[in-house]
Amino acid sequence: MQVTQTLRRAMLLYRDHTAVLDGEVRQSWSEFGDRVQRLAGVLRELGIGDDDKVAVFMLNGHRYFELFFGTFWAGGVVVPINIRLAAPEIVHQLNEAEVRVLVVDDTFAMMLPAMRDKLQTVRHVVHAASVPAPEGMLDYETLIREAAPIDDAERDGDDVAGIFYTGGTTGRAKGVMLTHDNLMANALNGTLTNRASRDDIYLHSAPMFHLADISSTFGLTMVGAQHAFIPFFEPEGMMRAIQNYRVTIALMIPTMLNMVLNHPNFSEYDLSSLRGIAYGASPIPEALLRRAMEVLPCEFTQGYGMTELSPLCAYLPPEDHIPNGTPEQQKRLRSAGIPIFTAEVKVMDENDRELPRGEVGEICARGPMVMKGYWKQPEATAQALRNGWMHTGDMGYMDEDGYIYLVDRSKDMIVTGGENVYSVEVEAALHEHPAVLEAAVIGIPDEQWGEAVHAIVVLKPGHSAGEEELIHHCHGLIANYKCPKSVSFHPQELPKSPVGKILKRELRAPYWEGRERQIH
Amino acid sequence: MQVTQTLRRAMLLYRDHTAVLDGEVRQSWSEFGDRVQRLAGVLRELGIGDDDKVAVFMLNGHRYFELFFGTFWAGGVVVPINIRLAAPEIVHQLNEAEVRVLVVDDTFAMMLPAMRDKLQTVRHVVHAASVPAPEGMLDYETLIREAAPIDDAERDGDDVAGIFYTGGTTGRAKGVMLTHDNLMANALNGTLTNRASRDDIYLHSAPMFHLADISSTFGLTMVGAQHAFIPFFEPEGMMRAIQNYRVTIALMIPTMLNMVLNHPNFSEYDLSSLRGIAYGASPIPEALLRRAMEVLPCEFTQGYGMTELSPLCAYLPPEDHIPNGTPEQQKRLRSAGIPIFTAEVKVMDENDRELPRGEVGEICARGPMVMKGYWKQPEATAQALRNGWMHTGDMGYMDEDGYIYLVDRSKDMIVTGGENVYSVEVEAALHEHPAVLEAAVIGIPDEQWGEAVHAIVVLKPGHSAGEEELIHHCHGLIANYKCPKSVSFHPQELPKSPVGKILKRELRAPYWEGRERQIH
Repeated sequence: MQVTQTLRRAMLLYRDHTAVLDGEVRQSWSEFGDRVQRLAGVLRELGIGDDDKVAVFMLNGHRYFELFFGTFWAGGVVVPINIRLAAPEIVHQLNEAEVRVLVVDDTFAMMLPAMRDKLQTVRHVVHAASVPAPEGMLDYETLIREAAPIDDAERDGDDVAGIFYTGGTTGRAKGVMLTHDNLMANALNGTLTNRASRDDIYLHSAPMFHLADISSTFGLTMVGAQHAFIPFFEPEGMMRAIQNYRVTIALMIPTMLNMVLNHPNFSEYDLSSLRGIAYGASPIPEALLRRAMEVLPCEFTQGYGMTELSPLCAYLPPEDHIPNGTPEQQKRLRSAGIPIFTAEVKVMDENDRELPRGEVGEICARGPMVMKGYWKQPEATAQALRNGWMHTGDMGYMDEDGYIYLVDRSKDMIVTGGENVYSVEVEAALHEHPAVLEAAVIGIPDEQWGEAVHAIVVLKPGHSAGEEELIHHCHGLIANYKCPKSVSFHPQELPKSPVGKILKRELRAPYWEGRERQIH
Repeated sequence: MQVTQTLRRAMLLYRDHTAVLDGEVRQSWSEFGDRVQRLAGVLRELGIGDDDKVAVFMLNGHRYFELFFGTFWAGGVVVPINIRLAAPEIVHQLNEAEVRVLVVDDTFAMMLPAMRDKLQTVRHVVHAASVPAPEGMLDYETLIREAAPIDDAERDGDDVAGIFYTGGTTGRAKGVMLTHDNLMANALNGTLTNRASRDDIYLHSAPMFHLADISSTFGLTMVGAQHAFIPFFEPEGMMRAIQNYRVTIALMIPTMLNMVLNHPNFSEYDLSSLRGIAYGASPIPEALLRRAMEVLPCEFTQGYGMTELSPLCAYLPPEDHIPNGTPEQQKRLRSAGIPIFTAEVKVMDENDRELPRGEVGEICARGPMVMKGYWKQPEATAQALRNGWMHTGDMGYMDEDGYIYLVDRSKDMIVTGGENVYSVEVEAALHEHPAVLEAAVIGIPDEQWGEAVHAIVVLKPGHSAGEEELIHHCHGLIANYKCPKSVSFHPQELPKSPVGKILKRELRAPYWEGRERQIH
């Protein structure tokens, strides 16, 4: 299968339907398809042949969407760049991935001069924006206008479609190679979970370089849904876009959802067009989910996965979101869900033996959505894919009904006095307190216990709560050994990765300076 | 992907839910899965290794369902036998496919003695029924009871899962090799079209050796739906089963639908559990479809495809079934629909060039559902799959919106006085007459015109109509040159293939005896 088939299908069946909504820009599928075919012609002219790399370093927008398809159509491999990286990291990735053509928008064009001399493989820099290109860069719109459309390169299913550098909240970023078949497996599974159709309007609000958003890109194209864009996430901008574009499906990473619900102007926007919210990419505090279900009366679906899984491997369907159900049903709200349609999931011990239901081990998955490997890292690939299973590094268990429960990223677990404490449980308890806006629980050095449970909390504006009160609150909810021994208050938003994962490494750093934290 | 993954998913997630409803027999997914794993152990003991063939020659039932999965689980290839074939044809297929184990039920066991000596590769005959095996055959239930469950052979996606002999309404039957990936592509696309879930109950009422039924088998397993069975189609038996099992999804080949709707006891059965009817495998007269939509208030979905396409390649979704819509919407009722999610469809001329929209040519398709090839027929495979497209042999056109309209099987078109007449159009006109129960239009020899349009009609009981009246009726509906020049009345049901395709070859034979019909 080729990912471009999704676009050909939309062009065939939904020709005159709207494909793109981006500020003043509206394009039908036939207009969008025409631009993609010209863009592919441009890339071919710039020397992009089969397997050549095209990097995209841009905010969200319709040209980003175009660049996925244009690169595939030309036969190339797309390399989306994490926009929050520092210049040396970007240079490293562009060189390591052997990028030939780099496409930037006007926001990131200004970073180019400082790094240009260090780029070893980039032959052309293209400036994609509605304003003319600066000196030394090719102008995207001019190139497209003057290009002739070309035929699809029609890559094989096993050919690499993109190299996606992982967020890198732990260790150095790795380039995940996803094939056309990988992305199509995700498109089919995603469409089976979100039941999208040509009547839907999806908002690209999470960063488009990240699989959390890419997960929807091709499935929604296949069914002819509309793609709306905001350049970057900001709670009020997102609410405005939902209202203006009449968005029906949105992806909300838990921190995004939290910021939207707690925004002072939340009630001023009409969000009634939403029929489905997909959430995921990090664990959701149960209190936040309950609040969201109360004030946003639409279907909720949780997705669980990772870049290496294209990214979906499990989902919690709307019918398992029953806030006032039986205790069993309420427990489901804390689950990451059941395996998607073509995935197999097992919980393994350190010797890759499947553990009995209920026991915590490493979540492993296999199926057509498992990556081809890490770019130029055969050892890391062999390690991650040993015995034919992708080892996620996430710790969790599966219940008797096949529901997956995450307890922590394996490297994020706290061991205190020989007891394992999974920070997500403690964070969930803290979120039950009415004054808590954000909470991160980490292990800090402790002479007696090895590590002690420490909470870092952001309070809601106008609320107050002291250290003792929060610790006492937790004692009412979870086992004593799991409760924070200390609480510190953070004056502003917690530091996050671009998709909203709290950067615990950063929070942990000052406590561990000069010491080595033992990783289990 | 392996087809067995659908069963493992059902066993994981729907363990205690009902899997099988077959008369007195009810099995949960864990019971069914246990039997499959034992059956695989039995087959392995009987010498079935990777790629070895297991033939099934049985009426519909839960053991047939088991035999699909048991064969895959053991690593083998299933060869379902068309139950209406004559003994010499069966012997030929069993020998050609190199079948090692043959499984029969008590209905077909009696045919064995006559053919046994001629079977060159069959080493064991297994008798699968609720009664003990006759002399000389192994007893299925005893074998399963005594066997130990084994691990899944875990075949690759590109390995052949089954050899499916095509109905053979034209020429000699060919063994279509479908891989695990082919069947999984169909399962995913099928589930996207029928939106099945664990709440559904599907009735296996068309013969289980045929892809029209197999099309639903694996997708419905993947989502944990229930499988109900009747041994063979018979209108009252089907209505009784729908009522008793509370069936929600049923497959109705147009002739089946016609027989059900015209049955004198139709109104005595409670069919209200039906939420979706899939129809296909042969063109449906528009009048029949309209009548069905009127009296069966559920969703209708048309499937179009063929064995070589696993079998789905296009579908007409429920939202295109609007009986009283605009002329455009009403025209859609005569369409075979739009390409399924991962299929590409083109209408080609005889040189494999795509024709402009609206022009009639051969319907061709490509995608992950296209067969691996014909068993031991490399030339026929190369011919059917030339230029990477499956050439269906069906003639049709595609409109500007991507909807496919079939006009006829290519070899069934009538050429009269240089004009092409597509019999389906003439049959549709005849079906508009209130007295017509069945109609088949063929070309018969004509001194002046080469071929003349001839209609063979079955009248409804208690109705009458003469030749002249019917010809006159057609003149009001279609162009003069398309109208029958003659009509003959058939005293009983028209001869049909096991899935209900009218056997035009048989109807044509007496007229063409001693002559050669020119095939276009």
